Amino acid sequence: MADTISFARGAPSLDIVDVEGLKDAAVRAFERDPAGVTAYGTAVGYVPLREWIAAKHGVDVSQVLVTNGSMQADAFLFETLVQQGDPVVVEKPTYDRTLLNLRARGADVRMVSLQPDGIDVDELAGLLEDGLRPTLAHVIPNFQNPAGYTLSLEKRQRLLELARRHEFVVFEDDPYVDIRFAGETLPTMLSLDDAGTVVYASSFSKTVCPGVRVGYLVGPAERIAQITKLATNTYIAPNMLAQATVFQFCDSGALDRSVATVKEALAERVKLLTAALDRELPDAEYVAPEGGYFMWVSLPEGTDVDAVFEEAKGLGVQFVKGTDFLLEGGENTMRLAYSGVTADQIDEGVRRLAQAVEAARSRAAA
Amino acid sequence: MADTISFARGAPSLDIVDVEGLKDAAVRAFERDPAGVTAYGTAVGYVPLREWIAAKHGVDVSQVLVTNGSMQADAFLFETLVQQGDPVVVEKPTYDRTLLNLRARGADVRMVSLQPDGIDVDELAGLLEDGLRPTLAHVIPNFQNPAGYTLSLEKRQRLLELARRHEFVVFEDDPYVDIRFAGETLPTMLSLDDAGTVVYASSFSKTVCPGVRVGYLVGPAERIAQITKLATNTYIAPNMLAQATVFQFCDSGALDRSVATVKEALAERVKLLTAALDRELPDAEYVAPEGGYFMWVSLPEGTDVDAVFEEAKGLGVQFVKGTDFLLEGGENTMRLAYSGVTADQIDEGVRRLAQAVEAARSRAAA
Repeated sequence: MADTISFARGAPSLDIVDVEGLKDAAVRAFERDPAGVTAYGTAVGYVPLREWIAAKHGVDVSQVLVTNGSMQADAFLFETLVQQGDPVVVEKPTYDRTLLNLRARGADVRMVSLQPDGIDVDELAGLLEDGLRPTLAHVIPNFQNPAGYTLSLEKRQRLLELARRHEFVVFEDDPYVDIRFAGETLPTMLSLDDAGTVVYASSFSKTVCPGVRVGYLVGPAERIAQITKLATNTYIAPNMLAQATVFQFCDSGALDRSVATVKEALAERVKLLTAALDRELPDAEYVAPEGGYFMWVSLPEGTDVDAVFEEAKGLGVQFVKGTDFLLEGGENTMRLAYSGVTADQIDEGVRRLAQAVEAARSRAAA
Repeated sequence: MADTISFARGAPSLDIVDVEGLKDAAVRAFERDPAGVTAYGTAVGYVPLREWIAAKHGVDVSQVLVTNGSMQADAFLFETLVQQGDPVVVEKPTYDRTLLNLRARGADVRMVSLQPDGIDVDELAGLLEDGLRPTLAHVIPNFQNPAGYTLSLEKRQRLLELARRHEFVVFEDDPYVDIRFAGETLPTMLSLDDAGTVVYASSFSKTVCPGVRVGYLVGPAERIAQITKLATNTYIAPNMLAQATVFQFCDSGALDRSVATVKEALAERVKLLTAALDRELPDAEYVAPEGGYFMWVSLPEGTDVDAVFEEAKGLGVQFVKGTDFLLEGGENTMRLAYSGVTADQIDEGVRRLAQAVEAARSRAAA
């Protein structure tokens, strides 16, 4: 069998990572700030990077905490906010690790439908009117994982109104925001918020690379201070070497070039992927994403994605089943990640996928 | 006032960190393994470093988890082992962050006296005979923080016997082991254990530098697998850039040179520090450490360390009060760290300390 083609990996292929630029940034970090790179540092993160992030978002540095990847930021936020039994709103479908972690904390997870223009705010308003009092609502506003959908400006504003009125935290989980390759950038809810209801998380995993494990939180200063205390007690300080390297990478302009490279590559991959799907799996439904890593594909009702997954394994193509992102339903859906496949793999990958769907259907019919 | 001299900082001064060697190691990491450095990696840590650690300790790789610093390793271990109300044994005095974290988890912390040859195993045996059933005993066997004492071989064996008989975990917290500059190296309890009672933690903070934030756990494979799952859900993977850099540093022989530099410097500092104490504060009592960063100093009974601390602030010298490492008592004790002071600061620092003690005594007498 030929090498496996993975539409499962939500990570960049090596060809779109600026390894040379990162190496140079690490060298500059050691040369320009040897004490800052090698000493413990503090839990708030590497101070120049914290300042860079504050400037990017137009907030005070006291509102920023730089962490070991944004999953760690999520974990800290959940630890300070979510107790056993607390209702928490998430999108349906949503990122599988968020779902897992909220359930592991014993949260009462309420999934609210996701539409191509984002979370169904009417459905959420109905639940709130019926008395739901969530601690927080977790929303991935741009190029959502797994669906690839983006929350409209109108819904962003509506969500903030609901959060203010019903006093819940909007957790704006926004790692893909800078990887928009089509359409127009929308303002973050963080920037629209004037009531301190938003806690914002993002990351350098998609713009620099995942191996640096640098993410961050932006939120009200008191909440950030509370989480910083938890961070101090957990690990004293996050990784200074990685954060200083990321700072040098951003500060030198390498970040802008890296983002341009990533966007160009992903735009081409989406073009190839949608063309291949239209040709090989014409009854598959999807919304072509305007950014990010992922596309949600619905096969006709009755298609059994478990069976497709098994057939795909044998044919050397991987994806993540839609059911992994849901508490129930989604049996005919899948998430295709185009971040980790190079352009030349896409046609062959979709051909194998179509074969897998065909084989699963034949088997079901037999 | 002259620059403050800090005997408080449990961190290396920059002159004993091999910044050039680390920079070269980072460059080699990018050049030799660009995919490994930039991709997510897995929660077990950077695979070649995990293998290096397993070889160092003579264990299977499945027994090793590499983490973002050893405090994070502690936090994971406590999260899997220690529930609200669980009795946990620690040394008296012990590392203040360990004390803080165990109390934050609601552990029933039982302090057992520390002697110059380590934890008082007779006192512990008595508590166990009286029915104490601890979940774990936390022990810093070499050059203990804060006391600088080392657990004797006989007591290591005795502690293992007690752990086997009473079925508690020995948490061997051993970040200073490789920084021995006098006396003979003793076997780790991990290496003496044949019943899977030991979980061992160590770190590269003292041998490479703290800013890389690389620590690790070694223990029974099943326990490591359980903690790895928790690590995956917390941060997907620890820092690949930092761990790959540390691996290149270790693999090239730079680590051995770095350890030699650190040991030579610390040995000289202890010599200067003890000579200065004997001269300036002849009624202070201490045991000269054979390694590590810290020395415990007892002033005559009745000396009020709070008052000394306040006077010291004004005189430009810092230390940590002994009371910070205890639940009660220690009012006449202090921890002096000699890791962060350079040789030329020690005489002046101790002179100021003696002035502070004198001032506190005069004030108390007035």
